[in-house]
Order: sequence, then structure tokens, then C-alpha cells
Amino acid sequence: MKKFINKVEDVEAELTRGLVRSKSGFLRQLPDSNVVVRAQQKKERVAVLFGCGSGHEPAPSGYVGYGMLDAAVPGSIFSSPTPIQIMKGIMEIASESGVLCILTNYTGDVLNFRMAIQMAQMQGIAVDSVIVADDVASDTSKATGRRGLAGVVLINKIAGAEAEMGVGLYEVKEVAEWATIGLRTIGVANAPCIVPAEGRPSFSLGEQEMEIGMGLHGEPGIKRVPMMSASDTAREMLDRLMADYDYRGCEVVVMLNNLGGTPLMELYILNDFVAQYLAERNVEVYDTMIGSYMTSMEMRGFSISLMRVDPHLKALYDAPARTAALCR
Amino acid sequence: MKKFINKVEDVEAELTRGLVRSKSGFLRQLPDSNVVVRAQQKKERVAVLFGCGSGHEPAPSGYVGYGMLDAAVPGSIFSSPTPIQIMKGIMEIASESGVLCILTNYTGDVLNFRMAIQMAQMQGIAVDSVIVADDVASDTSKATGRRGLAGVVLINKIAGAEAEMGVGLYEVKEVAEWATIGLRTIGVANAPCIVPAEGRPSFSLGEQEMEIGMGLHGEPGIKRVPMMSASDTAREMLDRLMADYDYRGCEVVVMLNNLGGTPLMELYILNDFVAQYLAERNVEVYDTMIGSYMTSMEMRGFSISLMRVDPHLKALYDAPARTAALCR
Repeated sequence: MKKFINKVEDVEAELTRGLVRSKSGFLRQLPDSNVVVRAQQKKERVAVLFGCGSGHEPAPSGYVGYGMLDAAVPGSIFSSPTPIQIMKGIMEIASESGVLCILTNYTGDVLNFRMAIQMAQMQGIAVDSVIVADDVASDTSKATGRRGLAGVVLINKIAGAEAEMGVGLYEVKEVAEWATIGLRTIGVANAPCIVPAEGRPSFSLGEQEMEIGMGLHGEPGIKRVPMMSASDTAREMLDRLMADYDYRGCEVVVMLNNLGGTPLMELYILNDFVAQYLAERNVEVYDTMIGSYMTSMEMRGFSISLMRVDPHLKALYDAPARTAALCR
Repeated sequence: MKKFINKVEDVEAELTRGLVRSKSGFLRQLPDSNVVVRAQQKKERVAVLFGCGSGHEPAPSGYVGYGMLDAAVPGSIFSSPTPIQIMKGIMEIASESGVLCILTNYTGDVLNFRMAIQMAQMQGIAVDSVIVADDVASDTSKATGRRGLAGVVLINKIAGAEAEMGVGLYEVKEVAEWATIGLRTIGVANAPCIVPAEGRPSFSLGEQEMEIGMGLHGEPGIKRVPMMSASDTAREMLDRLMADYDYRGCEVVVMLNNLGGTPLMELYILNDFVAQYLAERNVEVYDTMIGSYMTSMEMRGFSISLMRVDPHLKALYDAPARTAALCR
């Protein structure tokens, strides 16, 4: 395992502290925890919190700051934050305006957030949640529904911008849910990552294999195939997105998210095809984000997200934001 | 070679087109070339151009936009742009105020830029250049001097912000050179990258080896050692930076640059040590940038840059910028 780390058991604490130290002007870490909040908290408006496992850097803590999150609650690597951790985050940022929690649709996250929210409500705090389940490749026949992927970053942006406007908790939740309705993501991986405490890859792929639809933690996708060209890969992924939601005639934000180890060069090459594909189908691209937004450590691969936008969502997408990982 | 590309010979053209298409609102590509310029060019001020090989994405084209570059001139992968390509860029952005070219200190770049600048001057255009040579690990006894590394991105930011203020060519060059005087970088690599046209790694490292001081194209560094902890690695690199330039008592901008394949998690962990090390030596950190700013495709490793800043440089560093890869 070739990683620039220190002790395996210190990974989560050190990465959080290192991130906070890079932006000490506006980030603050709660004592004895990896919860990250804004250094200056404006108390009289809805606060937004996002939690997910560590290993997805810059998510979640890289999105704390003006115009986006009030708090980020990272769990252990590839594990949901605990109810206690989530509760700590909620208590720190809560005002009379309430707190919106954003989470991705994994069983552990859903259970732990539900428990934390109930605990907070018992303390008299108004808390609500939005669950992001944007992965078109995961099995919809299961009762648990679809997994959440990188699209959650866009929902953080939308909700954070709306909250910054000073509207009520219901309005922030409503616009975040509205955005999720037109949000779809699909991923592909061509090399695994290593969870430090395990010391070896969580799955293996053949010398020339890739897997379409794989999840952020190596969950099985739709199929394993020999490496395809950039254009063929993107076409298959976009076909599946378009089959699930008809974006023809819509305006969209596109996100090409690096799972971690893929060169930016390849993402740019992929976007050359994505832009052409969407133009041919009368899908108007409002903006395209290309980068490492929600990763799986050094996993190689990427995801494509499409989010339908209307004038209100475009204004929120464009609204000023200042975080470690995303600025406007 | 597991890469999301199409034909090897199309890599440079497709990556440039894909990047430009991601930000079509403010980027434009010159016909029959990979030169990228701003869509709306303001003609009555000094223009700034940066050129380097492809394979370093998001450099150079990801830095074109308001507050930073007017033109980027990418060469083939790991090769300098040709004099003709550079000349195209200069001619496109030139006004009576002149053009400042920024380049990294490699023999090919220096020769090709020199030729292009002479050609432009013969056309009556005022052109000057700043050469960035920030790598403390490269051999200073050679007549060619030190290599350029990721620090050039900071110089692009400084020069672009100064040019945006409407000052003269001499002033833009002067502030860029002033910034380079207090700029030092050192890199480390622990896994190679593959140039698509070659199809195999340009160097090899043992299962548990890393190389301190390696260049952006796999140039030999100072020494090969067994993998060290994050803290020991950062300490050795910072010791070498501090031995070359005494930053004690200075205020600095820190850049932790991902060579491409390193998880952000590791960079955050490294910064936890970097911040502590600098604080202990009375080096005040004004801001820390952590991300993929000047890469070597999927190469694993990172570089640390320190740039001394004074009030003027801080204002330029903070000045608004809107590019694909860097926003303020």
C-alpha cells in the first residue's frame, strides 16, 4: 500500500485537521470530533449539513463555507457518520430557523441520520432532510432504492445558496428536492482503491477490464466489459442516463466527477464527446464542472451527472460560494 | 494502458476541445490549433500568455479567463509548444500594451519561446517573458538552471491579476519576477504515468519506493528511498525548501499540488504536518491551495510550493479570477 499517510488509525483525524488548516480563515473543527463548521456562523437562517463517509474527499468538509454548507460530518472511511457525530453537527449550527440535513441513500446513512434527527427534534430543533439517490445503475427493484453518487455535491450547492437567501426550512428543502428530481448520475471504474485499514484493493478488475455502473465504494455495477474508448464509454453512460430521464429540450448542468486517480486529461477528452452527444439531442448545457468532487480515494474512473436546471436553479448554481473545494 | 481516450494521435486536440466546451461562455479555441483564449478579449491592456506541454492538465488552458491568462498554448504531451503555436497565441491577444509570456525553465520551452518572441517583435509587438525555475531539487550547477514546477500557476495568477489592473508591460513583468524570487517548489513521486503514444511507464519505482525531487516529466530527483510516512516525507521536503530560501518570519502562500493520481485525502494529511511545521518556524501561512494544479497525468505524488507574499502580492493573489481550474 503506497500511501502518504501516518498511522492508519489517524487518517480521518489528520485529513480533517489538514483540510481545516488549509482554510483556517473560514473553517473550524469541533473539539474532539471531525465535524467541520464555518468559523463565523450566522445564526439567523436555515443551516445546511452534509454527512458521508471519509474517503470521498473533498466531500464532505471541502464544501463548508459561505453559500454552501454550514457543517460537514465525515464518518470513518466508507462508513456513515454515527448518530452522535451528526447530532454534534446539528447542535452546533442550529438556530430557530432550523437545519436541513443532506445525505446519500445508503442504509447506514439513512438509519444514522434518522436517529440523529429524532434526537435533535426531541431537543426542540426543527430538522428536516433530503436524501440523494441519483445512481441510475443501482438496482431499483430493491426496497432500499438507488444509491447516492456525486450529484449530492450539486444538491449541497443548491440548498446552501437557497439557505443563504434567508428563506424558511420548508423552502430550502423544497428547492433541494426539486433539484434531485431532475438529477441523474452514472459511474464507471477501471481500477480500485485501497482502504488504509484493509491494506488491499476492495475489488479487482482485469488488466483490460472496466465496470459500468460501479458505486462509490466498489458496489457492483451493471456489467464488466473490456476497456472501451472514451467516446464509447461516455455514449453508453449517457444512453443510460437519457433512458432514465428524458433530458431532451432541457437545460442541464453537467458534472464529470473524477473518482480520484483518473487524469484530468481523460475527463476533458470525455467531455468533448459528452458536449457533442448532448448538443445532438437538443440538451442545452448551462455549465460543465470537471474535477474531483466526490472521490473514492485513488479509485480510477469517473461519473457523469446531469441536473436539469430552471431559472431559479441556475441562479442558485451561480450564486457566490466560498469553500475549500468549490468557489463562485 | 488503461486510459479513457480515443485515438492516441487525437489526445491533445480532444482534451483541448473538451475543456473549451466545458466553459464555452468564456473560452474560445483558435481554428486549427490548440491555442485557447478568452472568448471576449479586452484589447487595451497587457495580455498574459502561458505555454507548456500537454499532460499537465488543467495547465495551461484551465487558467485562461478573467483575472488570469489571456491565452494558453499547450504543446504535445510533455513537449514544448512550437514557436508557430506560441506566435499564434501572441498575435491573437496582442494589443499596443504588449504581451507577457510565462514559461517554465526547460530547454525546449526556452528556445521555442525565444524564437516566437523574436518573431512577434519583428511584427512590432511589445513582448517580454518571465521564466519560472522554482524546483529546488534540480541541479543548479548546470548552465540551464533549475526546472520549473507547479509554482508557475501562482505566477500566472499574480501576473494575470496585475495585468487586469491596466498597468504597463514592465510593471506586470516586474511583479511576476518579484513573486518568482520568493517562490520555491519540491516534488516527490511514488508511481509513474504513461504517455499515451508510448504505452508504458516512463520510469519505474519499486513496490515500496518513492523518489524525492522528481520532475514533472519523470526527470531524476535527489534520491530514491523506501516509502516514508506522510510527516517524514513533508519534513524532508520542507527542510530542503527552507535550506534554499529562509522563509522564517515571512508570510507565504502554500500550494500542495497533486501530480494527478494521489488521493486528496493524502494531500490533506500532508497539510496537517505542513501547517504545523511552518507554524513552528514562524512562517505565517496566508492561504493554502490543495488540489490538481499542474499534473503529470496519472503520476502519483505531489509537490509543495511556498511563495513569499507581501501586501501587493496578497492583493493580486486574492483578486477575482474566473477560469476553468481556479476561481476567486
